[in-house]
Amino acid sequence: MTDPTLRVRDLDETELLARIFPLLPTGEGVDVGPGDDAAVVRADDGRFVVTTDVLVEGRHFRRAWSSGYDVGHRAAVQNLADVAAMGARPTSMVVSLVMPADLPVAWVTDFARGLADASGPATVVGGDLSGGDAVVVSVTVHGDLDGRAPVLRSGARPGDVVAHAGTLGASAAGFDLLSSGAGSPADGAPGVSNPRSPYVTAFLRPETPLAAGPAAARAGATAMLDVSDGLLRDAGRLARASGVDVDLAEGVLMRDVTALVPAAVDVAVATDDADGAHRARTWVLSGGEDHGLLATFPPEVAEKGLPAGFRPIGDVRDAGEAGPRVLLDGEPPHEATGWDHFRP
Amino acid sequence: MTDPTLRVRDLDETELLARIFPLLPTGEGVDVGPGDDAAVVRADDGRFVVTTDVLVEGRHFRRAWSSGYDVGHRAAVQNLADVAAMGARPTSMVVSLVMPADLPVAWVTDFARGLADASGPATVVGGDLSGGDAVVVSVTVHGDLDGRAPVLRSGARPGDVVAHAGTLGASAAGFDLLSSGAGSPADGAPGVSNPRSPYVTAFLRPETPLAAGPAAARAGATAMLDVSDGLLRDAGRLARASGVDVDLAEGVLMRDVTALVPAAVDVAVATDDADGAHRARTWVLSGGEDHGLLATFPPEVAEKGLPAGFRPIGDVRDAGEAGPRVLLDGEPPHEATGWDHFRP
Repeated sequence: MTDPTLRVRDLDETELLARIFPLLPTGEGVDVGPGDDAAVVRADDGRFVVTTDVLVEGRHFRRAWSSGYDVGHRAAVQNLADVAAMGARPTSMVVSLVMPADLPVAWVTDFARGLADASGPATVVGGDLSGGDAVVVSVTVHGDLDGRAPVLRSGARPGDVVAHAGTLGASAAGFDLLSSGAGSPADGAPGVSNPRSPYVTAFLRPETPLAAGPAAARAGATAMLDVSDGLLRDAGRLARASGVDVDLAEGVLMRDVTALVPAAVDVAVATDDADGAHRARTWVLSGGEDHGLLATFPPEVAEKGLPAGFRPIGDVRDAGEAGPRVLLDGEPPHEATGWDHFRP
Repeated sequence: MTDPTLRVRDLDETELLARIFPLLPTGEGVDVGPGDDAAVVRADDGRFVVTTDVLVEGRHFRRAWSSGYDVGHRAAVQNLADVAAMGARPTSMVVSLVMPADLPVAWVTDFARGLADASGPATVVGGDLSGGDAVVVSVTVHGDLDGRAPVLRSGARPGDVVAHAGTLGASAAGFDLLSSGAGSPADGAPGVSNPRSPYVTAFLRPETPLAAGPAAARAGATAMLDVSDGLLRDAGRLARASGVDVDLAEGVLMRDVTALVPAAVDVAVATDDADGAHRARTWVLSGGEDHGLLATFPPEVAEKGLPAGFRPIGDVRDAGEAGPRVLLDGEPPHEATGWDHFRP
């Protein structure tokens, strides 16, 4: 257990790294790890997949809500989801961490544990530490396609089945539970009287169905993306990139809505807002940061059975006169099609 | 020319990206560029080299001194130097930029131009933009070894020749010129009465001898690193990693010191400090952020002629009883062996 009074300013970089490195995952496929000018990672496929994302304190997370573990977990997952959405297997990552001098060292080691627990087979091969006035985390994740073509957003064809793996709306429910005071960020540790709601956990530590990405690619998915900005908005992106209409089945999605109604009622009570069911519908259709995978499959694949984790939620159709877009049971949705966490 | 009153908050992310993308380098070797969940980069070698670095406003740069162009240039170079120091050829990079809402859009496009001009053959394949209270730049650069073994810090052997490519002390001289007021950050544009000193430029826009890294690897370099924290400190790192003594020839280095004496006198006059020559010596031996390459070569390679850009500055010897370390003409140097820009 790290002394809770120990701050980042009390250690030099070498001492801090000595506390972080033992917590980070090591794995196969790394010829040169941290410690030299750069790392050397094997890419047997002859290509590598790469994506990067930044998390800024006060914009993407609040330290009052998110533990170091939460932030490390989330920083890994949001990048891992992008790699999986190409149909690739994550292999390695580099991590930069900007920290205020008074940040507890325990927060940093907690961050490393969250990152390690979420990163699955991906090894941390390098990084950078710096001082700064707010915590900023930048993660770059690499993946290997194992000889397969990458699954882009642009390959959906009319007749394909639209399928989703992961959760829809859970993260947005957690955000609203926290914002309204109906949920607590407290960990459900023994002795904590108000354990964390699973939706709060979904918001603070989103999970992505990592194995479903390569599985979709192997099964012949024609298009795929990470649902990070809400189902309608991201389905609209896939529709426009592919030049098709994506028609979602409202009846299927209403089952997700129903499951979230109790949480919506909790928020409605806490905020004196009677329209709880409407909120649950907005979470499912427009809530961001669930990091599920939205993919399209040829009908013959769907007939044989979708890969594990995927369920059908709609169909791909020829784009109508209005141009490529997302539809709900054949009609343009009334909902806003976006979600901008903390952004003005 | 971007309207100088236009701020980041006046544009949405799509509009800002539309101004940045045309400025960024495109190149060979990229199967999928920006726009999907992740990029796909070719790695014909079957491995890739990767390194990351973060620049934080107020820690690593000040906007009063550094233009957007300077910061973009420097963010690229400090990572490219690490790739070159492995003997690799830079291929691609991802870039994250955190920006205050009142940052001029012209600063951001200037940043993109500086990044592009410095990045040589490396293509920008992805990135992330976010709001924040200070500018934070995180760059991850990838390189290809073209079938060669990476050149580590740990391969130097007794009898090897120590060689350096690039400048020594110029960046530290520029920092002291700016700090003392003897130098100006103003660009040497027409009509600017006080043009930027070349040392100020070396600090704000360091150059790394990119081609010298792969050339050293091809020539048979046994060890190599990027000199980012000062010659003595980085030579000491190479010495310890290789388990040898690195003995630098003071007479050779004193020629670098002599060249910097006029700048040291300017600083001495501005600060009422008589000891100008001593300051020039400190710049050469301990000044950071020049991003030259320090390498060791077998004696037979040195006899045939070092690769272009390298000059001999010392020899590798068996480690003495004091353990592996850096020496100056066979003696431990009196100088401090580090350089921590802006760090307390």
